[in-house]
Amino acid sequence: MTDYRQAALDFARQHKTDFLNNLKEIVAIPSISTDPERTADILRTAEWVAARLRGLGIEQVAVLPTGGHPVVFGEWLNAPGKQTVLIYGHYDVQPVDPIELWHTGPFEPTEVGENLFARGASDMKGQIIATLSAIEAIVRTGGLPVNLKFLIEGEEEIGSPSLEKWILENKDLLKADFCLNPDAGMMGKETPSITYGLRGLAYFELRVYGPEHDLHSGMAGGIVHNPAQALAELIAAMHDADGRITLPGFYDSVRVLSAEERADFARLPSTEADYLALTGVSALWGEPEFSPQERTGARPTLEINGMISGFTGKGQKTVLPAWAMAKISCRLVPDQDPEAVHQQLKQFLTEKAPKTIRWELEKFSGAPASISDTKQPGVKALSSALETMWGKRPLLKREGGSIPVVGQMQTILGIESVLTGFGLPDDGVHAPNEKLHLPTWYRGIDALIHFFFNL
Amino acid sequence: MTDYRQAALDFARQHKTDFLNNLKEIVAIPSISTDPERTADILRTAEWVAARLRGLGIEQVAVLPTGGHPVVFGEWLNAPGKQTVLIYGHYDVQPVDPIELWHTGPFEPTEVGENLFARGASDMKGQIIATLSAIEAIVRTGGLPVNLKFLIEGEEEIGSPSLEKWILENKDLLKADFCLNPDAGMMGKETPSITYGLRGLAYFELRVYGPEHDLHSGMAGGIVHNPAQALAELIAAMHDADGRITLPGFYDSVRVLSAEERADFARLPSTEADYLALTGVSALWGEPEFSPQERTGARPTLEINGMISGFTGKGQKTVLPAWAMAKISCRLVPDQDPEAVHQQLKQFLTEKAPKTIRWELEKFSGAPASISDTKQPGVKALSSALETMWGKRPLLKREGGSIPVVGQMQTILGIESVLTGFGLPDDGVHAPNEKLHLPTWYRGIDALIHFFFNL
Repeated sequence: MTDYRQAALDFARQHKTDFLNNLKEIVAIPSISTDPERTADILRTAEWVAARLRGLGIEQVAVLPTGGHPVVFGEWLNAPGKQTVLIYGHYDVQPVDPIELWHTGPFEPTEVGENLFARGASDMKGQIIATLSAIEAIVRTGGLPVNLKFLIEGEEEIGSPSLEKWILENKDLLKADFCLNPDAGMMGKETPSITYGLRGLAYFELRVYGPEHDLHSGMAGGIVHNPAQALAELIAAMHDADGRITLPGFYDSVRVLSAEERADFARLPSTEADYLALTGVSALWGEPEFSPQERTGARPTLEINGMISGFTGKGQKTVLPAWAMAKISCRLVPDQDPEAVHQQLKQFLTEKAPKTIRWELEKFSGAPASISDTKQPGVKALSSALETMWGKRPLLKREGGSIPVVGQMQTILGIESVLTGFGLPDDGVHAPNEKLHLPTWYRGIDALIHFFFNL
Repeated sequence: MTDYRQAALDFARQHKTDFLNNLKEIVAIPSISTDPERTADILRTAEWVAARLRGLGIEQVAVLPTGGHPVVFGEWLNAPGKQTVLIYGHYDVQPVDPIELWHTGPFEPTEVGENLFARGASDMKGQIIATLSAIEAIVRTGGLPVNLKFLIEGEEEIGSPSLEKWILENKDLLKADFCLNPDAGMMGKETPSITYGLRGLAYFELRVYGPEHDLHSGMAGGIVHNPAQALAELIAAMHDADGRITLPGFYDSVRVLSAEERADFARLPSTEADYLALTGVSALWGEPEFSPQERTGARPTLEINGMISGFTGKGQKTVLPAWAMAKISCRLVPDQDPEAVHQQLKQFLTEKAPKTIRWELEKFSGAPASISDTKQPGVKALSSALETMWGKRPLLKREGGSIPVVGQMQTILGIESVLTGFGLPDDGVHAPNEKLHLPTWYRGIDALIHFFFNL
């Protein structure tokens, strides 16, 4: 009897360059989902993914409209009696600014040493290509041991605003036993891990308006409440001195960590020194009664993602600005509701904003946090695959990031997600000089081959 | 005997279009002093002023280097035994952003009704041309009754950083009886006024640094002190709840308003409703124990002129920014010292900034406030001239803006300034759609003719 597993692993070893070339092709397309000028590139990327799926023999491949950026769907259902795995991914990427900090073009994939630099190399075009490469190795050497469905979306980096409705409308099409979601990452190149918890997200834009137009700061300074100052005062009031968020009722529905969960967090290998090295700050910050691991994995946050007002060019301009704006987002934990957080922020502003200014709050996207069942068969298959490749049992962890679809699949499709991925903490995702560690990536492809055969 | 005064007034009446065309020429040159890319335009404007002076028969006209943008000098000393008036002006202008709010090109002077719209139309190319037009009317119809010197600089809008040194090095050249400075404005088109007090200025850029580079807000949110938030916290702490500035020692050297000065302020005609209409805010702000007139005229301020951090484009980006920046400036009153305020801000930051971030403070410019002698003969000549044209005695007022050269002339040259100008409060100086009210401007030219003959 043919050893299909070994044949696939051999194929993967022999085709590393082809896999990498595929990755280089897709990361070269600037599919920035938040940028309206990149719509053509978004479509081009979706078509690229669809063509790749067709090339692997996947059936019913289509680029389907959602109201926003399209999803790529496909299926292969020729393994009767076997499990059906729904593979999730997103082909969109984050913006690239500040562009001047990139050492190489963000859409000119560049190998330096063991890394490939490009926007999306790690988050998550690299992870899509790893999954498709594992499938290619299996398909070319004998055939798939499971059924597959694909749902590759184009709006994850803007909070997946169209996806929930699309999943609701396509429940039958998406029927599966579980979802493989390779949008999570590893804790270190020698630390395989499986993510079972993700934070949710609620993203807002707050605009503060003062005078009708910019004023001369000498003429109006002292009688007009400066909108930049008023915005700063509101932002400053959103945390107390210990880093706790002050929105009314913000923590009311936050699920309390169990003793067991806190013990799991305490077992994670990352130290305060690791966090300092990773971020480059000289001192950590945040709620003192929780460890850094707990603060990023299991506590909600409120972040200022951006802020602008008045004159920001070189030199000086003595202007009293007419308005100020901040991008504000909350990472949510179980059982916070994004719309409830929206209302809490509105209530905070209603109570705290002075009469001297006017404010507007816009909600961009929202998704609740999710916790996956760690006892499901998919997790076991992945755990064993990772142990085979890394020689140690993977850690179970909760991650600080947000993947809205995980919660939606639980609620709408009733299926759990198995979260994996082969990005590393220092990959610079969402930042300049994003990269992918190629040796870890090739190891990840092999792990995925094992995963499919373990099912 | 010829009535030279009447001849000059007649000439002015007949040459309104020529005067306006001169103004249109000079405001068409984008002499933005803070913009390094406008250096050629700055020089072009200086040469334009020099050529205009030569055309009036002014002697020794030269564009002289200062280390920064050049000054235009000239003199006419052919009235022996008469007073010498040093005429100050600045040919530079403020930046034009936000450019999208201009209804016409900022450097395409456009007449709409009674107004001329252009950057610098009011502040202060219009005032320079008013003065030169009055002089032209006198020169062409018989000759000047006084001696004149000209000092027209190109760095007022960036705080005149090179001027003090240049005045120190050219004390003899600038010897005069007093300075005519038309960089102040009127309180209303039927309210002639003479400014005797100006606030000083200290301008800073504060930069707050957090992580080494932008981070994923999901990965680092909760453990890294967000620099935008930290900057907002520092800014918020710079005022107390009543709008008083909290920098240590900030008010220590502020001269207390005398009962007489407070009575003068109380006599000013502007009401709270005027300020609300002028600024477009729904409620005024600031130290409750001082009137709006006192707050803009005689109290120091701390303003945020600009602020930027992270992602400020359309849509959403879940980034934890690496840095945040604010432009901060203080308007100063007698007897505050700009360098002392710099030290106070440094001390504030040293005491208040948390260890979780790093900060840098840069001082851009500084000038003390100034109070001019209202009993000097120049003020009497101007007061009488304004009364002739407007039929009422001008109000004496202190203005919220800053003209560093007034203090420097007192200290270095030992001469007082007579401050006038024919801009109106709603001219939008330093803002989009700056304009000049032409009927008031023509009346101002006549007033200046009277002024020279009154000396």
